[in-house]
Parts: sequence; C-alpha cells; structure tokens
Amino acid sequence: VWRDKYIAVDWGTTNRRAWLVGSDGATIGEFADDLGLMSVPPGCFDQAAADIRQRLGNHPMLLAGMVGSDKGWREVPYVAVPADLQSLATAISWIDPRTGIIPGVCQTDGHPDVMRGEEVQALGALSDGAAAADAYICHPGTHAKWIRLQSGRISHFRTMMTGEIFSLLREHSILAAQLANEVTDGERFQTGLAEARSGASLLTSLFTVRARKVLGQNPLADPSFASGLLIGSDVHAGLSHARPGETIAVIGRSDLCRLYASAIKAAGFDSQIIDGEQSFLAGIRSITQILEPQ
Amino acid sequence: VWRDKYIAVDWGTTNRRAWLVGSDGATIGEFADDLGLMSVPPGCFDQAAADIRQRLGNHPMLLAGMVGSDKGWREVPYVAVPADLQSLATAISWIDPRTGIIPGVCQTDGHPDVMRGEEVQALGALSDGAAAADAYICHPGTHAKWIRLQSGRISHFRTMMTGEIFSLLREHSILAAQLANEVTDGERFQTGLAEARSGASLLTSLFTVRARKVLGQNPLADPSFASGLLIGSDVHAGLSHARPGETIAVIGRSDLCRLYASAIKAAGFDSQIIDGEQSFLAGIRSITQILEPQ
Repeated sequence: VWRDKYIAVDWGTTNRRAWLVGSDGATIGEFADDLGLMSVPPGCFDQAAADIRQRLGNHPMLLAGMVGSDKGWREVPYVAVPADLQSLATAISWIDPRTGIIPGVCQTDGHPDVMRGEEVQALGALSDGAAAADAYICHPGTHAKWIRLQSGRISHFRTMMTGEIFSLLREHSILAAQLANEVTDGERFQTGLAEARSGASLLTSLFTVRARKVLGQNPLADPSFASGLLIGSDVHAGLSHARPGETIAVIGRSDLCRLYASAIKAAGFDSQIIDGEQSFLAGIRSITQILEPQ
Repeated sequence: VWRDKYIAVDWGTTNRRAWLVGSDGATIGEFADDLGLMSVPPGCFDQAAADIRQRLGNHPMLLAGMVGSDKGWREVPYVAVPADLQSLATAISWIDPRTGIIPGVCQTDGHPDVMRGEEVQALGALSDGAAAADAYICHPGTHAKWIRLQSGRISHFRTMMTGEIFSLLREHSILAAQLANEVTDGERFQTGLAEARSGASLLTSLFTVRARKVLGQNPLADPSFASGLLIGSDVHAGLSHARPGETIAVIGRSDLCRLYASAIKAAGFDSQIIDGEQSFLAGIRSITQILEPQ
C-alpha cells in the first residue's frame, strides 16, 4: 500500500495542507486551503477528506494535527512521552485500511501538556538528518512548543500560548489599534526582547504600549515591541531549560522562525532554522516505511 | 458653590456611578448604570451629564475617570507625578464653572504609565485617614494599579493588564469554556498563586488549563486556577517593589480585593482592604475643600 504514491495531510484548526508523494519521496502535487476544523461541520469530515482524494487522486492517506482531536474527524488517544515515530505508527487510528490518523503526544506527570502535529515535524526533522537525536526544538506558533529530544525520542515538552495571546491582544484588547501592522525585527522588537529578558512582568510591560500611545511617545502604530515582549518572554522561559551552549533547532513557518531565531540569538544561544514542511513530509515518509518496511 | 450640595461622578469605560453629597459630607442620593464611555455616542456627553443632574438635582458636579480621556467628554491633560489632591484640583478642566473634570496622572520617565480615576481613590484614602502618607497601594481591576505614596503624593505607579487578559481568555480564547464560572479562593486559586510565585511563565502555565482538560485531569470547569496564576503573577511583580514588612493597602471592589489580599498574604505580606467608594468620595470632598476653603 505505502510503497507507491500516498497523500500526507497536515490538518489544523484553521487550515489544512495536503501533498501527493511519489514512490521516490518527491512531491508530485499539493494544495492548501482554509478548510480547517473550524470550517468543517460535524459529520462532514468524510466528505472533506474525500475532497482531498478528488484533488490529489485516490491514494492511501496519512493525516496529522488537530484532525485527531475531539473537534476533528475522530478523537485519537495521545501517545505518552517518551515517543518516537515507531510509537506514533503503532498507535495510528485507522478510519479504513488506507486512511489513518496519526496520534498526538501527551505528558501526564509533572507539567501536563499535549500536542498534535508538531510531533511529526520534530521527529521528521530527526529522520531527515536536520535535527540530532539529542536536540532541543522550538516550534513557534499559536501554541508554541519547546520539545526535548533524547536518544531520538520526544522525552518532554512545554507549550507556550504566545501566538494566541498575541492574537487576542491584536483582535480584542485596548491595544488592538496599535498592533495592526506587520511585526519587523528592528529596534522596537529588540527593545521588547530586552525588556522580557530583564524579567519584567508581561502584565505591566504590555500596558506601556498603551501608555506610550496616550503620552504621544510612540506615534507610529507598530506591534514589533509587543511581539518582542511576548516572543522574548517565551524564549526566556524556553531557554531556562536549555543546556549551556546548545544550538536550538527552530522548526516552522519561516517568518516566525526568523523572529524566534533573533530572540534566541539576543539571549545568547545559537539556533538553526529547519523547514517545517520538509520535516513534516520526512516524518510521514518514515512512518510509511515503518508501516511497510522495504 | 462647593460648600452646599454637590455631585461626585466616577465615570469609566463600561459603567458610571454618581453620588449626591450634602454639606456635611453625607451621601444623600446615588445611582449606578452601564452608561460608560462605550455606550455614549460622540457628541452626546452633554446630554448624558445633564441626565445625571435630572436624577440627582441641579448641583455643581465633579467628574473623574475615563470621562476625561480622548474617548470621553473632553480630553483632560494628565498631571505628572509626583501628584497630590492639590495638583489635581489645580488642573481640573472646567466644562462650565459648575462642572469640572479631574485630570488623571501620568509618569513619563523610566516606566511610562497613565491612570484615570484610581488617583482620586488613592489620595482619597489618604485624606480619609485610611492610608498613610507613605503607603503602597494595590488597586485591582481591568488595569490593576500599584501606587506608591510618598509624603502624601503619588510618586510612582505601575499598571498591570491582569483583569483585561483574564477577560480576553474568558471570552475569546481556547480556554473560554473552562473559565466561565465564578472564581473562588480555594485550593485551585492557591495552586495558581503558588505556581506564579515559583516564577513559571504565564504563557506556559495558562496552557496547562487546556492540557488538564483534554487529559481528563480537571473535569470541573473552574477558572480559579487561571485567576490564581494571573493575580499571583500580578502580585509577584507588584511586591517586588514593596519594602520589607510593609502592609499593602488594597483599594477597590470588595470581591476582587479579597482575592488580591489572599494572594498578598500567600506571598508573605500583610494587607489592609480599604473601601473604594468611600475613598473616592473622600477624595472628591477634599478637592471641593481645596476649591473653596472654609
């Protein structure tokens, strides 16, 4: 089944991406749309998945991400840490023999935490040779993840609500009007990073955006300072669990990865940006090879 | 003018309260409604203020709060720290000789910050004898304030967006469903306080509310843990500027004051709760006496 063409799907809350992969591992076709979970009515996932095959061909399909959550196609139980691609492959939930949903990963003792989707990218970066078997991975996003790989397995991880808090502030808060534009890595972003590193509370630092506005100290609307505060605070907390001198692997969307890499550099660590799409496809390919060894 | 009856108005973004005060300082009448700034169309403040006099009588009137902001009746310039009731009285903006808006207070050097309304309560608590001339005041709310009084003047202060962040999470975030109920000061609130004191990042601690839910570790929806995290983080930052052993004066709404007093106690400081309404009325009364000395 999996030695010929197959379809890989990264299906999240607001978007989905699908790729048709050839027997040599090369991408033959792909598409992305905004048919995330929130846009699929309950009971309509069969149809929404059939739509993927109509566009990319009637091939076997592996899906990862929030599609396996209680708001997705079918709730797939999490695999507990430590987790590797073998444990993910073993716990795939099969809609039918040619359609499987990859489980997320959970951590139940100490710091309770969950992820769905990032585990394929993190372990895919490893199978692709981009990340080491012992690595510390930062995956920016709505719910950013800091993932520790030990001996090729996800041993523990930590979620930061950084992206969601930024969106809430941008869309609904008293700061909304000042956060509308694009974030750029300039002086304001760096000032935000520095304030976060100083250990100042986000609760008070964020309000200075408002105070500067009404005091006329910050005439240009620009979210870069606030973004620097939030990403700086995230990175400050994430790096508190880093080993001295280790290089952080940053995986994800390139614009966000560059901001995080800048924050990591400002905090005195090196980083290496790894393409999230390539990692995802490498992770899915490794799982197909576990399902059907050569 | 101010030796006979007068009207005191605390006019905020979402609510307004007005009191009719007799020549002896006793409250003769009062009302509260939800005609805050957001509910008054531009150009309609004259009418909205006339409505207060229709209800309480045609008396001189002093107003404080966001009514003096750019979204209020008239934008009244801030008075800079250090500020006392004398500086506030001097800088009142007069709509007419019987109708004045009290300015807010700003801080422009170091940590830029602004307030409108809390300054009357803080300095009113002092003139009422409830707070000392050298005191550290905590005023919980949407934008909580930590106010340092030195020699009877507001010398510096710091705003925390605690209440607003909690509302954003409760209304719009992935945690919304778990934050719907009332906050109570029990084990979960105390656990949130302890986690905040440990210095854990809010960005990651807040996500454990979600993780516990999907892992079935927290079957009851209860916002007390999240509230403990936020108030604990606020108090942790506020107390980092306290003097060893000093008693914190907590002024405001009694339910919120009790939660803050509990957080302050858990952090090893004593506090004293001061009634916000009484402080406000004392502050306004002192200003009328400055305007028209006996």
